[in-house]
Amino acid sequence: MVASGPDGRGDLAPLEVAGRLDRLRRLFDSAGDTAGGGGPAVGGRAEGGRAEGAGPLAGLLVTTPANIRWLTGFTGSAALLLVTRHRALLTTDGRYRAQSSEQLAAAGVDGAVETTIGGIVAQRDALVRGASGGGVLGLEADHVTWAAQLSWDELFSGSTLVVTRGLVERLRTVKDPGEVARMERAASIADDALGSVLPLLVAVGSGADDDLTEARFAAALDDAMRQRGAEGSAFETIVASGENSAKPHARPGPRRIRRGDPVVVDFGAVFDGYRSDMTRTFCVGGEPRGVLATVFEVVADSQRTGVGAVGPGVPTGDVDSACRQVIAAAGWAERFEHGTGHGVGLDIHEGPSVGPGSAAILAPGTVVTVEPGVYLPGTGGVRIEDTLVVTDSGSRPLTRFPKEVAV
Amino acid sequence: MVASGPDGRGDLAPLEVAGRLDRLRRLFDSAGDTAGGGGPAVGGRAEGGRAEGAGPLAGLLVTTPANIRWLTGFTGSAALLLVTRHRALLTTDGRYRAQSSEQLAAAGVDGAVETTIGGIVAQRDALVRGASGGGVLGLEADHVTWAAQLSWDELFSGSTLVVTRGLVERLRTVKDPGEVARMERAASIADDALGSVLPLLVAVGSGADDDLTEARFAAALDDAMRQRGAEGSAFETIVASGENSAKPHARPGPRRIRRGDPVVVDFGAVFDGYRSDMTRTFCVGGEPRGVLATVFEVVADSQRTGVGAVGPGVPTGDVDSACRQVIAAAGWAERFEHGTGHGVGLDIHEGPSVGPGSAAILAPGTVVTVEPGVYLPGTGGVRIEDTLVVTDSGSRPLTRFPKEVAV
Repeated sequence: MVASGPDGRGDLAPLEVAGRLDRLRRLFDSAGDTAGGGGPAVGGRAEGGRAEGAGPLAGLLVTTPANIRWLTGFTGSAALLLVTRHRALLTTDGRYRAQSSEQLAAAGVDGAVETTIGGIVAQRDALVRGASGGGVLGLEADHVTWAAQLSWDELFSGSTLVVTRGLVERLRTVKDPGEVARMERAASIADDALGSVLPLLVAVGSGADDDLTEARFAAALDDAMRQRGAEGSAFETIVASGENSAKPHARPGPRRIRRGDPVVVDFGAVFDGYRSDMTRTFCVGGEPRGVLATVFEVVADSQRTGVGAVGPGVPTGDVDSACRQVIAAAGWAERFEHGTGHGVGLDIHEGPSVGPGSAAILAPGTVVTVEPGVYLPGTGGVRIEDTLVVTDSGSRPLTRFPKEVAV
Repeated sequence: MVASGPDGRGDLAPLEVAGRLDRLRRLFDSAGDTAGGGGPAVGGRAEGGRAEGAGPLAGLLVTTPANIRWLTGFTGSAALLLVTRHRALLTTDGRYRAQSSEQLAAAGVDGAVETTIGGIVAQRDALVRGASGGGVLGLEADHVTWAAQLSWDELFSGSTLVVTRGLVERLRTVKDPGEVARMERAASIADDALGSVLPLLVAVGSGADDDLTEARFAAALDDAMRQRGAEGSAFETIVASGENSAKPHARPGPRRIRRGDPVVVDFGAVFDGYRSDMTRTFCVGGEPRGVLATVFEVVADSQRTGVGAVGPGVPTGDVDSACRQVIAAAGWAERFEHGTGHGVGLDIHEGPSVGPGSAAILAPGTVVTVEPGVYLPGTGGVRIEDTLVVTDSGSRPLTRFPKEVAV
């Protein structure tokens, strides 16, 4: 069932997998350039003193599963991909013989990617032969372990291994229509699922259920997403009620949800590998009162302002400061203790980051979250988050659940 | 809620966290010895030509979250732990201020572990000061990325960084009574959960439900475990029916389960961080027929034989060969295409491995799975798995669900 994919995928725009390998290769020459933030994309010292620093790459050994999937369509958990200037070589084990052949064909790259199926030794031999031209070979230094790097260094004795960081990830930040369609489907599943379980919170508010825990509400939401076709949850669903809502990274626990509680619900679905991400904060049993009412208003205003700032050509740091100014004007600058957002795609957190001073420039097809929050320890917190795709003229939300507060 | 732990933990034997740091330190001198399989535990080349090879360690930088949890009781997702001969220094960020203090105290190591709370820079500064004595400093080379290793190498300029592999993991293979009690609770939750959802399969067998998919059965099982107090599933639950059962690593999909199907159910629960692992294979609608009947008998016989071989002083390779001989005698040696088992604990796969030629010696307190299988492509497969704790005289199963085949 692995290769056939989820139900209902056939009516979506196809993924434009073919062409991605060549887009990666076009980065090989300029690989000495610096990446947007986080240090040089290529270069730095390698083991054993054999690296001379940055330079055009002869090839890249791709070890990050999401990058292999993005470049070839292959979703198996155990694979390696060597991309050189003229070849692409995928290796995996016998479990994935049929699946790899089907998925490469479905992605339209079966002519461009050679496959070696076998044990670890056979796979390594194939890669060593593939790299036999020598030259500068990049490793994905944020994924490959030190132990693996030492082992590759021994195996690729004719090559000079260099650090690369975020090469494929940089390409992945701009989504094609098929990717956006999958994220939109994931977001729509999440919207529907939240609507289906909201009556549980309403029952608490009306006094009909005084036994709903955070953990039970989270489980119901996860289950509702799966029933609607999600492969799973995009990350561990956050349901944080009452004073727990003041902790941005709370995990759902045995706390019973009560009337008057703020309840932060931060969650997403996975569809065909692509993720959604949305946060809504509810107030159980009616409109919030006191300082919490102001917090709800300020965060909603901040989030609207941030969403309005998203558009092509905009530095992500500007989106962050747009959100942050509204909260600072209310006197809670110190209570907005995390970044404004992040990219989403095959990973729940990917580039670009949306934080203070972020220099990445938004382009049409980039998908980012906007999720300001204010957290008052002992009182409660509010966070509101949408996932947006940048368009030619501004942005379009993928997450569309209403932002009504009272339940 | 993070720090308070799951309900019902209080009545279990306590974890013996205090003392583990000193057990680790006792490995520092003999760190040049080889580990059981997988190459040397310490030594090998380090970046920049500054490592002279193996030698007594002045300290170990622990970066693997499960190892940090095991050594200190701290469960936060973002932490680093420097263990030197006379100090232990834990660093984490502000989110975990209260939790780290509570968990170190609960584990009884608050006097033995100094804590630094702060941003990345403050944490790194504290670790650099902690390592200022210089000497040979081990990194966990199977966890730390190449990029991180290069960065540590720059920061710890007075130390010589060396590769270490599996030092803490080796200690973790022998569980204390508190750990075994948690795994037993996880296994018991999983047993109960399977019993509660088995009527769904029975309904298919009786013709009352022709709409049960693998994915729906898996979701019901996951939900039942959470309802019974599991923190989650120990890994992605496998439900593989009909011809899918012939794929050892199938993921649950939209296939409808039918009368006459073999159904492999491989799953586990998490309780207080510890995992269980069990596989049962059912035949829907009655006893299996034809070649499948023989497969069921052979695998059951193989599994019983393997369980009988588990005991103190036994090399894990002997358990593997005990299982394998029964299957080979039936002519299906090639159809048992994976190892016999693995250790379980905080991770679902940990040491020792139980495979052909495995040389690790079982000791009282070691927890391993025994899970032979036979897979006939196009027909179906059968796998039966229990998780066992080695005792002074043999072994005791933690997973106890009956092995009736017909449902």
